[in-house]
Amino acid sequence: MASTKMSASLDGLDPLEHMSKSDTIRLRKRLVGESCKLFFRSDPLKIVRAEAQYMYDEQGRAYLDCINNVSHVGHCQPDVVAAASRQLSVLNTNNRFLHDNLVLCAQRLTDLMPEPLSVCFFVNSGSEANDLALRLARAHTGHQDVITLDHAYHGHLSSLIEISPYKFNMIPGHQQADWVHVAPCPDVYRGKFRDCDHPGEDMGALYAEEVRALCDKASARPGGGVACYIAESLQSCGGQVIPPDNYLREVFRHVRAAGGVCIADEVQVGFGRVGSHYWAFQLQGEDVVPDIVTMGKPMGNGYPVAAVITTRAVADSFRDTGVEYFNTYGGNPVSCAVANAVMQVIEDQGLRGHAKEVGDHLLERCRALQQRHALIGDVRGVGLFVGIELVTDRAARTPATAEAQHVLSRMKDESILLSSDGPDRNVLKLKPPMVFSMQNVDTFVDVLDEVLAELEDLDGDLAEPVNGHHVKTNGTNGTNGVNGHRGKATA
Amino acid sequence: MASTKMSASLDGLDPLEHMSKSDTIRLRKRLVGESCKLFFRSDPLKIVRAEAQYMYDEQGRAYLDCINNVSHVGHCQPDVVAAASRQLSVLNTNNRFLHDNLVLCAQRLTDLMPEPLSVCFFVNSGSEANDLALRLARAHTGHQDVITLDHAYHGHLSSLIEISPYKFNMIPGHQQADWVHVAPCPDVYRGKFRDCDHPGEDMGALYAEEVRALCDKASARPGGGVACYIAESLQSCGGQVIPPDNYLREVFRHVRAAGGVCIADEVQVGFGRVGSHYWAFQLQGEDVVPDIVTMGKPMGNGYPVAAVITTRAVADSFRDTGVEYFNTYGGNPVSCAVANAVMQVIEDQGLRGHAKEVGDHLLERCRALQQRHALIGDVRGVGLFVGIELVTDRAARTPATAEAQHVLSRMKDESILLSSDGPDRNVLKLKPPMVFSMQNVDTFVDVLDEVLAELEDLDGDLAEPVNGHHVKTNGTNGTNGVNGHRGKATA
Repeated sequence: MASTKMSASLDGLDPLEHMSKSDTIRLRKRLVGESCKLFFRSDPLKIVRAEAQYMYDEQGRAYLDCINNVSHVGHCQPDVVAAASRQLSVLNTNNRFLHDNLVLCAQRLTDLMPEPLSVCFFVNSGSEANDLALRLARAHTGHQDVITLDHAYHGHLSSLIEISPYKFNMIPGHQQADWVHVAPCPDVYRGKFRDCDHPGEDMGALYAEEVRALCDKASARPGGGVACYIAESLQSCGGQVIPPDNYLREVFRHVRAAGGVCIADEVQVGFGRVGSHYWAFQLQGEDVVPDIVTMGKPMGNGYPVAAVITTRAVADSFRDTGVEYFNTYGGNPVSCAVANAVMQVIEDQGLRGHAKEVGDHLLERCRALQQRHALIGDVRGVGLFVGIELVTDRAARTPATAEAQHVLSRMKDESILLSSDGPDRNVLKLKPPMVFSMQNVDTFVDVLDEVLAELEDLDGDLAEPVNGHHVKTNGTNGTNGVNGHRGKATA
Repeated sequence: MASTKMSASLDGLDPLEHMSKSDTIRLRKRLVGESCKLFFRSDPLKIVRAEAQYMYDEQGRAYLDCINNVSHVGHCQPDVVAAASRQLSVLNTNNRFLHDNLVLCAQRLTDLMPEPLSVCFFVNSGSEANDLALRLARAHTGHQDVITLDHAYHGHLSSLIEISPYKFNMIPGHQQADWVHVAPCPDVYRGKFRDCDHPGEDMGALYAEEVRALCDKASARPGGGVACYIAESLQSCGGQVIPPDNYLREVFRHVRAAGGVCIADEVQVGFGRVGSHYWAFQLQGEDVVPDIVTMGKPMGNGYPVAAVITTRAVADSFRDTGVEYFNTYGGNPVSCAVANAVMQVIEDQGLRGHAKEVGDHLLERCRALQQRHALIGDVRGVGLFVGIELVTDRAARTPATAEAQHVLSRMKDESILLSSDGPDRNVLKLKPPMVFSMQNVDTFVDVLDEVLAELEDLDGDLAEPVNGHHVKTNGTNGTNGVNGHRGKATA
């Protein structure tokens, strides 16, 4: 094949571009597997640079980023970039050699964990972390069975697709493995047990009882037995679900009684995002401690680094299998330098407290919006992990799927990047970089307010064309003011 | 837990150290899973910096690196470091946004592949690549069964341990899955069919016939059917095995006749290491083309980036399952900038041709050594992928396992990093950074010559202490001259 020769000097191109957007799209379509989807497929974004909570397209237009939890301490955070660059120029090798960055990172992480979570394994991605967690659980318990939640997504690997209903339910003819047991997602708004149907009850215990029943089922299976329960501490793909009080405490009790271990998947929600605590499982009480915690995305602010932290007992069981665990890049000096820098920035900038303050403001303003827009059925969240569930009928809680998709599209027109999730894709999902400001909250809510008002004007008829209808705010060029922030990274 | 507060200013520490080596060891033992093994366990190395083909410990001692194939274009290669640092400071986000680095990387990679290998998937590690390759193969064929080689290692993930006899044979009580079929490793020196027992025969066809028989077995299994054959194009962990001519051609024919696809694992051996070609499968002939190629380690020179390249037909089958494939860091602008820089350096510095030239010299000098040392049973390799198999009896080809371990230890004393592999750990394994020089070859062979002579003097009695016995060469401080090269990165 002939290479397309194009240089940055072509007229009209951003200096960070090598080709026109149409050429990028053409090459992508030809050369990259179509299973890899783009955001906004009909009109995807070409982003050429980013800073803090803003992303910039090839025309210099700024977008307010409400979705990139990976860029945890802000896109291109200078301390993190400097730490990576410095270490890349000095040494980048594997963990079969001793290195201080590795042990300092392990020390820092375990210092942030409750006892007895004290032993680390370093890997490259949240998926690798969850896969290793399953191996640890099976080595420790001698059991095979896994209890997972409905709508869960734990990663793109074969072993994780098998325990991710979010994915395997989409595969025609998928045969759920006999060692996989799916418990209801503890979603008190839309799940099996709804708060409105069980007033005053212990919803946590109610949902946990479902897990207990699956423990019995797994234990009764010939050759079966509970290896582990695995769940995100707050379910993200399932629709930004906050489990009810007492849920994890009861679940952990049942799972341990059945001889299994408990895995908290903190890949999306760890590192202070929830504001009040560093890890989301801690929201359920100081006495609620998993046996294995997995972490990833925010840990490297975009650099591929992830980890599994477990107890000495579990780590020793894995060691006793006699099989070495070697991960080529896991715990290399660069990835550990990056993770150490990310944790330092969280501390130096007080980002955990900031997430609480800004998140509280976001929840408060969204709840005020809920009073004025019937489309908003539920507002839930902790810190900078927030879901806004849209419904066409509040009493019936009917998912407003088309409306949610329309909101995303209109928010993009207004230079705000937002996504939706949940089984009905009707939950607007916010998990922005942690430097998201009070002013960003106000911009977001003001624009959402107007977009919802438009939708209500449409009387639900989404077939009617609304593109080109721009909200009039304080911005230039018909946008909402996001572009007024160019160059001002943090507020 | 209280943090250990230590700073770089402590007396006597290298400026790149944060604590003494003994503290690093103590923290590592306490905080990192013991399944993660160190090189030279009784006296591990603390490496604080590296450049080109040299690594430096905390005392400034230089080691000649014969083993780090990940640092493909040389440790801390400046162009690669600059590309990473530059892109890290501008944008590092996921592939749901369009970016030129991604499509340029895909274009470059597919330009290096024979038709019809034309569609890319980007991931973080060779393990992730091999796991995805299995998913692609199964989606395309609708079959489950995998044919793998004895002694194979394809990665640390659950799905890959199941097809890696190198690992699963070590697990007490491991139950090989019924969809896994293990073919003999095509090792004509020590394998099922030895060249000495089959003079003049088509060894490739002989070993391939074993794969054909397994295809029949898989197809006959209730619910079975061949999804794929997977093998490293040159088996590394199996002992630096070079398959005989005609092997892959015949294997691919049998596997395709059974409805399976063929996966070439180039994670260790790709990107020009074999010298004469860019990919090792090409050694078997221009007409030998896999359906799926996986690549990793050298691709990012230490930065976690890997890829799967396949045909349009296989990629379309995967797309048609309807399941999105999303990999958080896969194909991000930084990893693609790094991969593009690595490929540019290989081209600019002519490293593929260099690998052939230096590799030929290495093989020639090792074969000359074989004439003088009965311990060397076999010397094999292509380019900078070389194995030296030690035996205590040439006729019986008895593995010299203890001797090989002794050689590694003595080479380390002489500041040369070498490892061994193969089922008997008696194959000295060289896969150095590609900037390894002619002079490095001479240093390596001269030292090996003297170490083997020592061993022969010992009459095989390895219980006798030999530490402290230093080879006298042209170096200073009792070393072999490696430290004379400090600061001179390439020859």
